[in-house]
Amino acid sequence: MNRGTLFVISAPSGTGKTTILKQVMAVVPGLSFSISHTTRSPRAGERDGVDYHFVDRDRFVAMREAGAFLEWAEVHGNFYGTSRATVEANLAAGADIILDIDVQGCRQVRATAGDAVSLFVVPPSWQELERRLTGRGTDNEETIRLRLANARKEMADIVDYDYVVVNDLLDSAVATMLAIIHAERSRHRRTAAGAPMQLPAL
Amino acid sequence: MNRGTLFVISAPSGTGKTTILKQVMAVVPGLSFSISHTTRSPRAGERDGVDYHFVDRDRFVAMREAGAFLEWAEVHGNFYGTSRATVEANLAAGADIILDIDVQGCRQVRATAGDAVSLFVVPPSWQELERRLTGRGTDNEETIRLRLANARKEMADIVDYDYVVVNDLLDSAVATMLAIIHAERSRHRRTAAGAPMQLPAL
Repeated sequence: MNRGTLFVISAPSGTGKTTILKQVMAVVPGLSFSISHTTRSPRAGERDGVDYHFVDRDRFVAMREAGAFLEWAEVHGNFYGTSRATVEANLAAGADIILDIDVQGCRQVRATAGDAVSLFVVPPSWQELERRLTGRGTDNEETIRLRLANARKEMADIVDYDYVVVNDLLDSAVATMLAIIHAERSRHRRTAAGAPMQLPAL
Repeated sequence: MNRGTLFVISAPSGTGKTTILKQVMAVVPGLSFSISHTTRSPRAGERDGVDYHFVDRDRFVAMREAGAFLEWAEVHGNFYGTSRATVEANLAAGADIILDIDVQGCRQVRATAGDAVSLFVVPPSWQELERRLTGRGTDNEETIRLRLANARKEMADIVDYDYVVVNDLLDSAVATMLAIIHAERSRHRRTAAGAPMQLPAL
């Protein structure tokens, strides 16, 4: 059994990361999202242990203090975290895990999980990013300006990522991400966990 | 202009590396073999600077002493070497170069060119490798035994390679190699040579 790979993907808002991920997850077997811990209340239809691990604030803080999270963040007053034990169990079972987190989360993962493979999705140009954010029609001008300013800040972290995926044409960005996953699965450090394939030990 | 990537591929005899390479080279743009230097005489139809750089023994030895080769080897009394300057010029021009060399050559490249990406092609099993070597009908039993013994020795170097490509089904081995090339071209350390894509500097 080869150990799984931990993939981390980040992108400025409006880059199309979610669409890419949806297409990639639909065609790659053995790749799944990690189930996060959160202190927010379950919404209608959400199930504990399926959508999230729902925990109270005390429990979350205790886990955090104990170093139980690969990364965590506070969003709108709620805590979200990725449990190291959950990810580790999946990787040990040979499953690949993908974390869809921002640059701050990725910095934490880099510090806590040495062998993560990180991808940064970028728009083909600033003009195109602005066009996409405007085209969504969901944000007012001020919010778009803020998102663009954040994008520029986040782009500074690009140097710490292993791969850069340019989302110019969606199909080509999906193909690049599929290639990265395929290639990483052929990495020697992963295949070597067991004997190489059916080849007997030398 | 992004810097090109130096790929190095090795495989035990009979693994099918040449067939894989032929198919890969036919579909990947911007990827070519390096033109080796050799002391052997040109064969009919071979052109200097196209098939090989033909040099005499003194010149080869002088180049070798001057550290001009990324790797070199003596085969049947002739010297063969890969010029560092030739490879460097190609990489600087953004071209990807592939070196088809054995494990000894790859060891030299690792020592002389830090950023090479190395691939090792393995058969799906020892039984299958023996079957393929026998099936070629070109070698007698003793030669096959020798090739298998060499394969086992070469396999010990697998731990030093970046990627392992299992040649079970040819199409799948080709797909894996294509994915590795595609992924490596998306590596941040390569795309970062210029500004990321058309994005202006931050």
